[in-house]
Formats: sequence, C-alpha cells, structure tokens
Amino acid sequence: MISEKMQGLVNNNSVIRQMFEEGQRMAKEFGAENVYDFSLGNPNVPAPEKVKEVAKRLLDTSESTKIHGYMPNAGYPEVRKTIAEALNRRHGTHFNENNIMMAVGAASAINCALKAILNPGDEVIALAPYFVEYKNYTANYDGKLIAAMPDPDTFQPDLQDFESKINKKTRAVIINNPNNPTGVIYPEETIKRIADILYAKQKELGTEIFIISDEPYRELVYTDTEVPYITKYYDNTMVGYSFSKSMSLPGERIGYLVVPDEAADHEELFAAVTIANRVIGCVNAPSLFQKVVAECIDEKADVAFYAKNRDKIYGALTELGFECVPPEGAFYMWIKSPVPDEKEFVAECKKEHILVVPGSSFCYGGYVRLSYCVSHETIVNSIPGFEKVAQRYGLKG
Amino acid sequence: MISEKMQGLVNNNSVIRQMFEEGQRMAKEFGAENVYDFSLGNPNVPAPEKVKEVAKRLLDTSESTKIHGYMPNAGYPEVRKTIAEALNRRHGTHFNENNIMMAVGAASAINCALKAILNPGDEVIALAPYFVEYKNYTANYDGKLIAAMPDPDTFQPDLQDFESKINKKTRAVIINNPNNPTGVIYPEETIKRIADILYAKQKELGTEIFIISDEPYRELVYTDTEVPYITKYYDNTMVGYSFSKSMSLPGERIGYLVVPDEAADHEELFAAVTIANRVIGCVNAPSLFQKVVAECIDEKADVAFYAKNRDKIYGALTELGFECVPPEGAFYMWIKSPVPDEKEFVAECKKEHILVVPGSSFCYGGYVRLSYCVSHETIVNSIPGFEKVAQRYGLKG
Repeated sequence: MISEKMQGLVNNNSVIRQMFEEGQRMAKEFGAENVYDFSLGNPNVPAPEKVKEVAKRLLDTSESTKIHGYMPNAGYPEVRKTIAEALNRRHGTHFNENNIMMAVGAASAINCALKAILNPGDEVIALAPYFVEYKNYTANYDGKLIAAMPDPDTFQPDLQDFESKINKKTRAVIINNPNNPTGVIYPEETIKRIADILYAKQKELGTEIFIISDEPYRELVYTDTEVPYITKYYDNTMVGYSFSKSMSLPGERIGYLVVPDEAADHEELFAAVTIANRVIGCVNAPSLFQKVVAECIDEKADVAFYAKNRDKIYGALTELGFECVPPEGAFYMWIKSPVPDEKEFVAECKKEHILVVPGSSFCYGGYVRLSYCVSHETIVNSIPGFEKVAQRYGLKG
Repeated sequence: MISEKMQGLVNNNSVIRQMFEEGQRMAKEFGAENVYDFSLGNPNVPAPEKVKEVAKRLLDTSESTKIHGYMPNAGYPEVRKTIAEALNRRHGTHFNENNIMMAVGAASAINCALKAILNPGDEVIALAPYFVEYKNYTANYDGKLIAAMPDPDTFQPDLQDFESKINKKTRAVIINNPNNPTGVIYPEETIKRIADILYAKQKELGTEIFIISDEPYRELVYTDTEVPYITKYYDNTMVGYSFSKSMSLPGERIGYLVVPDEAADHEELFAAVTIANRVIGCVNAPSLFQKVVAECIDEKADVAFYAKNRDKIYGALTELGFECVPPEGAFYMWIKSPVPDEKEFVAECKKEHILVVPGSSFCYGGYVRLSYCVSHETIVNSIPGFEKVAQRYGLKG
C-alpha cells in the first residue's frame, strides 16, 4: 500500500529508534533503574536554567502574535543576526543574517541543504562510520550515498580512499565533527587536506562539490583538539547546527543552517534552502524557541557532566578488557566487539539490560556505539553487567 | 548551482510569501497603520491565555528532559491519546493513540502522508482553487498535481470534472475544508458524493485512492454548515490538522496527522508516515508545544473575532460593488477581479497600500484572495482605499 521507497525504510526501520522504544518498554518491565539504555543521543543534562527563564519571560511580556506567529521562512532576522555575531566572535568568521537559516533541528537543516543541491543520481560521500540517516536524507532527493572508509585504528578518514570515491557525480561530502558514532574529532590538518583534495577535484572535474558539515556536537569536546570551523577552509560549504545537544533541547527541534557568502551562487543557494524549508513542510523553525536560543546563545553546554561519564565508562570498560576508541568529543564511545558479529555482542549486553547500538547501523560492523549522555548512576550501575559480559567473552577483566 | 527542481521553485517563489515580505517592507516605509496587508494567513488573534499558563507551568514544574527531550517519532503517547479522545468526543470517531502522529504543522503532516504513499508519476487531484503548496508537496515525491475544477458560481467542486480526472495513476485527492482561498465549506452531501465516486473508481480501477484532508480551518465556521469529519465517510483517508489557526500558533509548527484504522494496511501506513516524519528531518513535533496543545485541547478558537471582520469586509466590499463569494469558513474572502487579469487588480489595490493575493497563485485566475485574520482596525481603515479602487473601475460604489 505504501510507496516503494518507504517500503524499504519500513522494512529497515532505524535500529537506534527501535532500541529507544525497546528501552522504554524494558524500563516499564524491569524498572528504569535496572535498564542501562545507552542507545540514543537523548541528553540527560537539563537545559540551562536560563532557557526556562527566557521562555517564561517571553511568554509573559511579548505579544502572542510576535512570539507564536509566522516570520520569514528563514527565521526572525534579529535571531539570525544574533547567531551570526556569536559565530563571528567564536570563530573569526564574518557572517550576517543572510548566512543563517533557522531550521527544525540539524536533521532538517541537512535535508534543506541536500534538497537545494542534489539532482537524481548525484553522489554524496560520507566518512564511515556515519549516522545512518545520511543515507535516507540523500535518498529523499534520489541521491546515492557513498561511504569513504576510515583508518581502522584511529577512525580518522582514510584520505586515499576518500579521494578515490570522488567522481563527476560527486555533489557533496557530509562531515560530522565531532563524529557520531566514534567520538573522534577530525583535526585542522585533516580538514585542510580534505579541502585541498576537493579544490583539486573541483578543478579537475569542472564541478562544484559541497561540504555539508553536521555539527550538533561542536561544543562537546574533552581534549585540547579544536574543532575547525569548516567555512574558513573551503568555500562551498554549508553547516548544519542544532541546539539539541549543547542546550539539551532535542525534542524542540531547533537549529540552523549556515550558508557562507563564499559558497557558489550564495544568494540563489540561500533562497533555495529557504524555499526547501518551506516546501518540505517545516515552513520555519519553531518561533518561541528561535527567540529563546538567541537569548541563550552564550550559555555553555555542561561538558563536565559528560566528561565525568566519559572518564568513568572509558576507564571501566578498558579495565575490563574492552577495546574502546578514546572519545574526544560528542557523547559516544565506539567499542570493538569481542566477536566479529557485533550483533551477537549487542544481544549479550541486552541480557544484562544494557542497550548499545550495533556498528552496522553506522555502516561499519564489528563495533558498537555507546551513548553516555545518561545519568552518572546509569554508567556506574551498568559496570557489573559489562563485567559479566567481559567474563563470558574471556576478556582480561 | 542549485538542483533543477529547486531552480523551478526559486524562479516561481511563493507569491504569498513574497507579498508577506513586501508587506513588512511597506510597513517600515509607510508605517504599519498605513498598510492593509491581507496577504497571509497569520492570525492576529492572540493564542488563548491558557496556552501561556500551561507553557509556563510545564516549564516550572516538569523535568527539563521530560519536556524538551526526544520521545517516539510519532509524539508523546499520552498527547496522542488526549487528541484521539477529543476527536472522538467531537466527531463520534473511535481513534486511539495509534491513529495520531504529532507533526510539525499540517504542512509537514501532509508531506509525511504524501511521502508515505506516492510513487514517482502518481497523480494527486486537488480541488481548485487550491493552496499552491500542494503542487510543491506532491512534486517533492515526484508526483503530479491535477486540478479538478469548481462550479464557477458556487466554488463547490464540479463533481463531473472531478470524476473525469481520476485514472489508474490517481493515488490521492487533497481536500481542504473549509477551503483556502475561497472560504467555502464542502457540505456532507458533497463529501458523500466524493466518497461514492472514489469507492466506485477504486473498484473499477483495482487501485486504492486516498483522501488527504487538510483541515487547519476546521473550527473557523460562520454558518450552520457542519464540516464533515472525513474518516466517517471514506476508509482510505488521512487528516492533516494544525493548531496554527485555531490556537493562533502558526510559528510554533504544531499539528498532527490522523491515520484511521480503516485505511488500507493501517499499521504499515502508520509506520510509514512516522518514519517519513523522521527522515524528512522533522524527527518529531516540537516537544513542549505537544504537551501545551494537549492540555489546551478544549480551548475554543476566537471565531467571533473573525466573524466580525468577515461581516464588515464582506458587507463593505459588496456594498462597493465587488463580487465576493460569501465566506462560510476559514478567514479568507474570494473576490472577483473587476478586470480579467486579476494581477492588474492586485496592482491597483497595492497603490492604496492594500495587499491581496492573485488567484493565479491558487491555480484560478480572475479572482483574488483576501485574508481577514487581521485587526478589525485594518479592515475598517482599508475601506476608503477599496472605495477608490472601486471608483477607478466604475463599480456601483
């Protein structure tokens, strides 16, 4: 009855989302305190107190039609200006309101970007392992996602493989930095080399290739590595950002897309993403929360909360003999499965009420992803379960 | 640089949205009180006081992660249950939470519905004049919009023309009741006849044809005509609803899609619309406002406000000699242009700082749409301008 495209999606429905719903079911059955749900990037940190204060003040003092009404599809101009200026302060960029389109979260921002530039059959390269929805987003516009493989030790991109995947049909490269699911950060040196490769390929092929940078985890960094701001290294870029993680507002669907002046045909491109925002049915980012995030733009994410979780779980699991990629950013840890088929490992964990996501959901088997955006208690209380799993696999713990 | 599909959209960018932005520019230039902007369906009525109270209370008393966090893609189960029960009370339906998917407004709900069922080349019939975005929504999924013509006197559908447009490729019919832009209501008798035609055609052609009912104006009714609840008359239906107009929350992007049990393969269809919601990047309807609208579900739209505007503008313009379709619902009036090319009429009105939308934007020339969801003052103060236009055209005023 449903469309052919959707048939494929229904049959392969997001494993992550299924686990989220399974986790909610298990929490009811066994008690929330006895389920260690590391499946979803659903922050456990509350939104900054200021979010509440600003929202309440706006509700109290603003005319209803000014906070709940329509505005231009790209968002309130003054909100876009505030965000542009905040980016300029932090990154030395030179954006203004015409470089910022408010979006229904980063997922919607990336969709608008892809809708604006993809013709059927165009290819989009993603650096594996990658968030599986990129494939669906690309397919929405009849594009084809191509995976570029990582160095299997560091999970930095294998730039030779990346270069070999670029051809006449390549229209965009999606970069997710810090990376979901591995937690690694691609440093400046890597970004510069990616830019060099793309500039050379654009020239060689006579095409324009966009970098679409997906940056919901930009502020969540635990090392000294800086997350380079991509527009400073390459002209044809668009940056999708979300306040889901930095302000713990994932349900509110509030983010933005940056389209820098340097992007080819900037003005037309900005018109295209804005119209895409309208015709895919979003129309505009939610109005009250546009104003809330603008007023809270200098609020800091609670990195210390995640850092404590990260240190604890990374320490405990490596101690137990699991091989983990040291997480540099985001709130994910990438754990090597003790057995080749990581789904078996996932099933073993589930016996201990521990939910982790198989790496095959990120186009990279043999690993699992653990989201540590949970309460510290959940981390601590899950360790005996991990210990049992480690014992069953005969790890050193 | 941008995709071919978007090229077409950028070149023919929404006249309504352009006028909205032009109206904002004119308001700056001439003063807001000297511009009579009847271009957009942006309610001037404030949201019910209870919306503010509930939002503030939720912000004060709920855990941040419970009001701003992720929930199932279809929305909070208890919110969906509340909405299902409210519909059951009002319409004698028998919905439960598995019939309701919370959506980022009706525009997004309709997109999810179309994405779930359309294969490339499928046809979608809309009853002209129709909201021009239906064409773009259909094109998002490579479908083709076919207009069924109205009776030119009553603007009720010409059911013979409608029937003649149905063929093997017809996958859906979009019905917008009360209608934007004409303000007419399709009564029960019409809906029954449409259902009969579709049942017969499904049988004859061996296909399943959906009615997708777009109902943001359901509560805005000025006559005794009842707006029939479509699921009671036809099995293969989906209903898109928005709180944009009834609660004056258009910027918040909050609405829902109804998928009744009677629709073919209901369970698979519900899964498909929910996954569509996720993969087009909405992920879920904004979380706080899901809870707000559920608690405010029995709040009434301020119909009296619009009724007063309607009576005034309809009375004044017919008095001046304009031919107007008597508005039964929504907040639009459909005015016959005194000259065949209504764009000329639109330009004449603009000279008086009056903004109305040409009917060609609704696939029906020779008429213009006036949105009377503005302050009563705007209505009253616009009348001298209309009088001048009427005089220039030599109308009886």
